[in-house]
Amino acid sequence: MKKSKRPNSNLENPRKNTSGPTASVDAILEAIAQRTRLPEGEEAVRRILREIYRHGRIGTKDLAYATRLPVPVVAAVRRELEKIGLITRRAGAILTSEGKEYVKSVLGLSINESLVCPVCSGKTIIVKDQFRSIVEKLEEYAKLRPRPYTWLDQAFGTPETAVLRALFMLEEGDVEGRRIIFLGDDDLTSIATGLLRASRKITVIDIDERLLEVINEASEREDINIECICHDLRQPLPDGLKKYYDVVFTDPPYTIQGMKLFVSRGIEALRKRKCASVYLSFAHKPPEEMLSLQAAINEMGLFIRELIPRFNRYEGAEMFANTTFLAKLETTETTHPSIIGPFQGKIYTGEVSPTIRTYKCKCGYTVDVGMGKKFRTIEDLKAHGCPRCGRKKGFRITKKII
Amino acid sequence: MKKSKRPNSNLENPRKNTSGPTASVDAILEAIAQRTRLPEGEEAVRRILREIYRHGRIGTKDLAYATRLPVPVVAAVRRELEKIGLITRRAGAILTSEGKEYVKSVLGLSINESLVCPVCSGKTIIVKDQFRSIVEKLEEYAKLRPRPYTWLDQAFGTPETAVLRALFMLEEGDVEGRRIIFLGDDDLTSIATGLLRASRKITVIDIDERLLEVINEASEREDINIECICHDLRQPLPDGLKKYYDVVFTDPPYTIQGMKLFVSRGIEALRKRKCASVYLSFAHKPPEEMLSLQAAINEMGLFIRELIPRFNRYEGAEMFANTTFLAKLETTETTHPSIIGPFQGKIYTGEVSPTIRTYKCKCGYTVDVGMGKKFRTIEDLKAHGCPRCGRKKGFRITKKII
Repeated sequence: MKKSKRPNSNLENPRKNTSGPTASVDAILEAIAQRTRLPEGEEAVRRILREIYRHGRIGTKDLAYATRLPVPVVAAVRRELEKIGLITRRAGAILTSEGKEYVKSVLGLSINESLVCPVCSGKTIIVKDQFRSIVEKLEEYAKLRPRPYTWLDQAFGTPETAVLRALFMLEEGDVEGRRIIFLGDDDLTSIATGLLRASRKITVIDIDERLLEVINEASEREDINIECICHDLRQPLPDGLKKYYDVVFTDPPYTIQGMKLFVSRGIEALRKRKCASVYLSFAHKPPEEMLSLQAAINEMGLFIRELIPRFNRYEGAEMFANTTFLAKLETTETTHPSIIGPFQGKIYTGEVSPTIRTYKCKCGYTVDVGMGKKFRTIEDLKAHGCPRCGRKKGFRITKKII
Repeated sequence: MKKSKRPNSNLENPRKNTSGPTASVDAILEAIAQRTRLPEGEEAVRRILREIYRHGRIGTKDLAYATRLPVPVVAAVRRELEKIGLITRRAGAILTSEGKEYVKSVLGLSINESLVCPVCSGKTIIVKDQFRSIVEKLEEYAKLRPRPYTWLDQAFGTPETAVLRALFMLEEGDVEGRRIIFLGDDDLTSIATGLLRASRKITVIDIDERLLEVINEASEREDINIECICHDLRQPLPDGLKKYYDVVFTDPPYTIQGMKLFVSRGIEALRKRKCASVYLSFAHKPPEEMLSLQAAINEMGLFIRELIPRFNRYEGAEMFANTTFLAKLETTETTHPSIIGPFQGKIYTGEVSPTIRTYKCKCGYTVDVGMGKKFRTIEDLKAHGCPRCGRKKGFRITKKII
């Protein structure tokens, strides 16, 4: 561990604050950020150290959730921090005594508790008792879902997430008496919304017939009349669905084009293009992508009324730390679709960044994973198991080919 | 009350949903929106009716808070709703039996409770016991504040707001070990932040010497070493403050130019222009302005990491319903100030929209209020009292001259 840049005496006594720029205290953070090629830079390393400090002991998945960083990124940084002796692993990452000294004297950390509301976990709304039965029903229907098609960027939201989304829309006045269209619904949010029994109309469009069967079954069993339409949104919206809905909900493929396409179709579905709500779930992307995403939202004449990080949780889906944000967008007089007519471009993450990753099994066998390979995703590999020894977990990434 | 468009039988039985567009159910909402020239259109009228329904009985200020609409707008809509018999006033607005029938059968409302987290009120964080004493101290210092200069768009945040802001930044990792600059601080957020005793440096720039005196006094009494600089941000940032800070906090004048100017100065104050946080408080503006605001944020290469409506509460300040949103913006590699050097343009709301309003006192006397008049704002008029009878409240707006 480099010690040269360590204790900054200003921290001990805040009155000694100097006013000109001082030497950077971030040499270690910077070095790790560079070594792991983090688009979030040293701030991400700092965030990881801070969450380990605050939690005392934390597993990689929880660390990814807390920092909003992808699991592989967190794992890579964690390894680097281990190498230089700031952290160690004992059923989770913990700070070494050197690490503790570092976060206190160099990073200036001193408060190790969470200030997030313990009741709603920062999600702003809660599932009151009278809606608990809806979560239970969702849990049953969620079991009927088939294995996700990860090449369609499917990742199944938890039953609680579906209900919280429905309640959030309800709170915002977008359920009662409303016509709602779900553009893609592998999370079954339409069922949670239907179970509130307050909407005028609920329609789901999805490319995956298997999911529509689950939604259809729930709809019939619960008598909630959800209209299911199997349709590839790269094709224009069927005419009957245009200019009819009050509210749009979508958790699109996590690419800029995917968002633009799904939201554009949503705009065409709206009865009026002013003061209508478009609910968008999307991954916490690196800064430059977040900027492009919001520029694209803006260009369509939509603004962000509310944005709640980590609102959605998913089963599996390690690549984006099992969590995404929920944004409530609102339309204005200038709102317009940015994509009209058939769309030929790439929308799924596997198409846009056809990354090939090489995973090594504990038995020593290596497997290439990605578009065009036998296993398109690590989830596929895990489901199938190592082709040599059959192990279903413990794969470690060894290299990445873009 | 028009009854022609009333009960929609689809609501009673969701299975009867039709699929083509049906006749608009919004004739009443639309008429009122037009009569009151609401930029939010019929949706705002619907929101007002919904909040009255949910609360049972609600005063105009609370209604403005709940709907995020300015108090005069809410008051105007309320009067129209009274005229057509949907609501009546009895220590607050309540629905008449016709009104109840209307919101249920036409608007489809049926759930009259709030789903917002009762512990944090949707603010995502809470003031834990160990920070309660900071709120108490802020309450004392807030008493030292002079009367707000409303022509500088001053509106004093509540002590709780100041502490919640400081805790929100703390939770986001932006207090401990950080150098923080406050661009304008009539809300005394710098004192709340200083009392956490965890930052490396706190600087406040304000144009109002009176406020800096309050902050200075608190800083000395509490030994928290806040640097206070009296400076008009229309002039460039002093060189010593450039490229030095990790975090920016601002609650600027609520005009696009005001936001651009303050945030631009903030960007120049940042040590590095990537993954740094810029906290922005701003009024809930009508849709087109929200869009322009976010376009301006985007053009500076900033994106919205989180946006919490109604986070901030203010004393007085009826024009924006006593509440504004808090956004956490983050910088990217392309972040840059949109205003460099001295700025000659208009930034205060009074300059940008020099509205003259005529108020009528209960005694019958009428007074013009606005820039260039004896009373620049309704708050000034109330503080002084009616020039004829001396009454300090009960003024009613009679006309608006733009």
